[in-house]
Amino acid sequence: MSSGGVMRQSELLAPTLREDPAEAEVASHRLLVRAGMIRQVARGIYDFLPLGLRAVRRVEAIVRDEMDRAGAQEILMPAVIPAELWQESGRWEHYGRELLRLKDRYERDFCFGPTHEEVVTDLVRREVRSYRELPKNLYQIQVKFRDEIRPRFGLMRGREFLMKDAYSFHADVADAQREYRVMYDAYTRIFERCGLTFRAVEAGSGTIGGSQTHEFQVLAASGEDAIVSCARCGYAANVEKAAAPALAPPAAASGALERVATPGKRTIEEVSGFLGLPPERFIKTLLYQVAGGAVIAVLVRGDHAASETKIQAALGGEAVTLADERTVERVTGAPVGFAGPVGLDVRILADASLRGVRGAVAGANADDAHLVNVDQARDLPAAAFADLRQARAGDHCPRCEGGVYEEHRGIEVGQVFYLGTRYSQAMGATFLGADGASRPIEMGCYGIGITRTVAAAIEQHHDGAGIVWPAPLAPYAAHVVPVSTADAALRETAERIGRELTAAGVDALLDDRDERPGVKFKDADLIGLPVRVTVGPRALARGCVELKPRAATEAAEVPVAEAASRIVALVGPR
Amino acid sequence: MSSGGVMRQSELLAPTLREDPAEAEVASHRLLVRAGMIRQVARGIYDFLPLGLRAVRRVEAIVRDEMDRAGAQEILMPAVIPAELWQESGRWEHYGRELLRLKDRYERDFCFGPTHEEVVTDLVRREVRSYRELPKNLYQIQVKFRDEIRPRFGLMRGREFLMKDAYSFHADVADAQREYRVMYDAYTRIFERCGLTFRAVEAGSGTIGGSQTHEFQVLAASGEDAIVSCARCGYAANVEKAAAPALAPPAAASGALERVATPGKRTIEEVSGFLGLPPERFIKTLLYQVAGGAVIAVLVRGDHAASETKIQAALGGEAVTLADERTVERVTGAPVGFAGPVGLDVRILADASLRGVRGAVAGANADDAHLVNVDQARDLPAAAFADLRQARAGDHCPRCEGGVYEEHRGIEVGQVFYLGTRYSQAMGATFLGADGASRPIEMGCYGIGITRTVAAAIEQHHDGAGIVWPAPLAPYAAHVVPVSTADAALRETAERIGRELTAAGVDALLDDRDERPGVKFKDADLIGLPVRVTVGPRALARGCVELKPRAATEAAEVPVAEAASRIVALVGPR
Repeated sequence: MSSGGVMRQSELLAPTLREDPAEAEVASHRLLVRAGMIRQVARGIYDFLPLGLRAVRRVEAIVRDEMDRAGAQEILMPAVIPAELWQESGRWEHYGRELLRLKDRYERDFCFGPTHEEVVTDLVRREVRSYRELPKNLYQIQVKFRDEIRPRFGLMRGREFLMKDAYSFHADVADAQREYRVMYDAYTRIFERCGLTFRAVEAGSGTIGGSQTHEFQVLAASGEDAIVSCARCGYAANVEKAAAPALAPPAAASGALERVATPGKRTIEEVSGFLGLPPERFIKTLLYQVAGGAVIAVLVRGDHAASETKIQAALGGEAVTLADERTVERVTGAPVGFAGPVGLDVRILADASLRGVRGAVAGANADDAHLVNVDQARDLPAAAFADLRQARAGDHCPRCEGGVYEEHRGIEVGQVFYLGTRYSQAMGATFLGADGASRPIEMGCYGIGITRTVAAAIEQHHDGAGIVWPAPLAPYAAHVVPVSTADAALRETAERIGRELTAAGVDALLDDRDERPGVKFKDADLIGLPVRVTVGPRALARGCVELKPRAATEAAEVPVAEAASRIVALVGPR
Repeated sequence: MSSGGVMRQSELLAPTLREDPAEAEVASHRLLVRAGMIRQVARGIYDFLPLGLRAVRRVEAIVRDEMDRAGAQEILMPAVIPAELWQESGRWEHYGRELLRLKDRYERDFCFGPTHEEVVTDLVRREVRSYRELPKNLYQIQVKFRDEIRPRFGLMRGREFLMKDAYSFHADVADAQREYRVMYDAYTRIFERCGLTFRAVEAGSGTIGGSQTHEFQVLAASGEDAIVSCARCGYAANVEKAAAPALAPPAAASGALERVATPGKRTIEEVSGFLGLPPERFIKTLLYQVAGGAVIAVLVRGDHAASETKIQAALGGEAVTLADERTVERVTGAPVGFAGPVGLDVRILADASLRGVRGAVAGANADDAHLVNVDQARDLPAAAFADLRQARAGDHCPRCEGGVYEEHRGIEVGQVFYLGTRYSQAMGATFLGADGASRPIEMGCYGIGITRTVAAAIEQHHDGAGIVWPAPLAPYAAHVVPVSTADAALRETAERIGRELTAAGVDALLDDRDERPGVKFKDADLIGLPVRVTVGPRALARGCVELKPRAATEAAEVPVAEAASRIVALVGPR
């Protein structure tokens, strides 16, 4: 990264704020605004100020370096994409309102690209003809737009954002799988080099299609995604996707199916409390609308959560959405809260933990009533079983002996997909094989949210006083803070250290502002550069300055002449 | 620039073409497509392939380096801009259909930013309060969109393009002028470092506003702009803007004003031929519509061209457009082609070269008729005179003694503007001065067309065989071409030179394709890297390879062991 000389804070546009912005719900949003790194222009749309942009550029540089090293080639596709390409893939109709659509002066339809499968597939179908020209992996780092219904959390869920998106093209499945692994390894190196704690987790493939995918999740309490991992074997997956063991049904007395009054008790918790039976004795009944139009019932144990990813997989990939209130009332004949499987005239999918359950409680499909003594074998003989529930902490890992899941919250910063021929077939991207036969090209795609990675780094690395940048992403490596600019000795010492750092290739920010020391220290903690060098009169009288790593509580006094080399040792190569 | 190891052409997406694309009218468009550097996605919208993008990145790197060195700070503003900001500046109404307007899912108005005066002024008005926080120069390198009515010439006049735009903010005019000079000098260094022949020319300010501006014009025969420069004093300006000396009217006999029949003769050339009088004896009468609604007549000598920039300046900055046919007929009472100033009931502005003209020819404001013996003093006493014509080759330079204008064609790649308070006043961007008074911030803005600079470089540097990259912009510095890949000795020598170049920090492209030598040489000339290293059996038998600078006609044989160091010496530091 070109860094020039030391940057003077008096000249830098980095307007820090003492107060949290009212609209900021998460730490990264709050701190990026307070540290003068971003400013909102419209909902989900931001200006990047110099410090914020430098962090973005650091992520970009690491991503570019590892993509190049992995043999991918950088290209740049347009932001404005003609509708015809999206019509060919079918996404123009199906993408919904997150796609920002627009018309040019001639009333032709375009969109602001949220991803570029169509554009790159179009390029490759025009330029690649033979197996000899494969494989190819083409990537770009580009501004994207997704018209989120509820943009929030600053850079975590913005509308306009920077993304690295890569697309690979192969002659056969095996080569596509090889590249998938190459990208998986490159992503692992990228997030390691960013200094982040993350898990690569198996995940559902969402709307982009494709049958194999991993998400790269930065672990942070504020993460929107729940994931489980096994410390013993390293397996990790989104709770929606992670294999969940079938739990033997709790032993329970049973008897004749009986209807009991549960006036006004709708939720599992309410009925559980009312009847004095634990939630694991309940059957939770969820009605889903399948994309084709049918309604199905999905059953999970009362203490389990259903996984839509698994439900969709059990249906062979068909999309499902929770049925609306009117549909529930029509199908069950009762208000929402009293649905139960017994006597329901729809297809029933049940989680494997319900196989053979006895003495269970379920809704009675009647207002204010539940059934007790539900025995699966007797009362629900037609149910089909599968793993349909979300995994959770404490579940035994199905991949190894003796492993147990731990649960984490994660922020998805990257994803690798094996796409197969979803796009190449729809758009006629074929190649001639060595045997002279024409086949659709096998594809993969690989994304990294560049700006979201910056936000995730802050979610994982901050404290009450501000950001605590991982050194590889810090806008500058060191913050040189003379406690007064009126004192020529302090000023000159600070300048000297700044010059020595620059000469050593370490980028530094020099707080040459005419401010009180308390203001400077607060701002330094807020901005969160890896090392602060405090130049004060008492230490300087002893020929010393203070070095304080941002993450440390104590400062160390070091001779002025050694300061620069000590900092270089601390922050490592930039 | 991170370049990694040597790039293997067999893996690179660089599909070269033997045929010129039908739609390409200029060399840069033709060659960028043929060399596999860009591909059209829609009219005026392109994919940048790896080689094309590398040239773009080289321009970006030089621009960023010089902007940082000049003290500007890099930021990144959004591509999607809320309409409210453009409404505040008034440009939402006035920008016209080149502005790509769009609506988000909530039906709110936005535009895809063609420039960012409003966004940056909004940022600064929110964050800068005091003269102590000034000056600031903020720049970004970003994708822009202008919905051109007739996109063409490839990257020369695209709709989506990359631009560096900078905006500076100052407490007073003097400081804004100082920064104007700093940017002028930075731009001069940028285009020098790009290896381009250019002129910084005085120019009209167009629609962006502002009272002082220079264009940076890369000289090329295909340029859309005409400029004049004085070899003696260095003065250069757009012909629209360049001071043009008043030429004494040609001595001519005169007499009584007389109407002559000129059946079907409308143009100066036609009437000149018909009457046997040279064009400089004619008065050309042009009717313009002023923005306010009035119509005026502008007179220039028959062999001169009117300058709209100068006409607008003479009107105090009011915009003018040529009157349409209907207006001409209404005002003159005659069909187009016969307008003349005598008896016309509109305000008349005349170029200074017409002052005192005698015996001239002008339209008679009647079908198929002209007037001869027009004497300005007698027949056009109310005309107001000013410099209203375009300058041209041979005009005496008004800035020095004895200098004479030369004329060039140019491609505008950059422009610096002094904006004054046009935006800060409209948008309330004020600051508190040292005296406690609030004033609007003085502004400047400074643009460079990044992708257009790449095109301009090719317009200036190409030959019949392909591109001849200036070394600083070349996608790779050297092209290593083994004439056969079947021969292990050739292959290994090429690989060795590639490795040595990489180790010396020189990026190289290795043509490891299984193609005939003729194909490889043709592609190498087309792609146009600065040096070609040919590894062939005859030279290699003598322990040598051939080095051929792309611009040279002869190759030089050098020992294999010296090849890398000779190339480094040729292409210089990258």
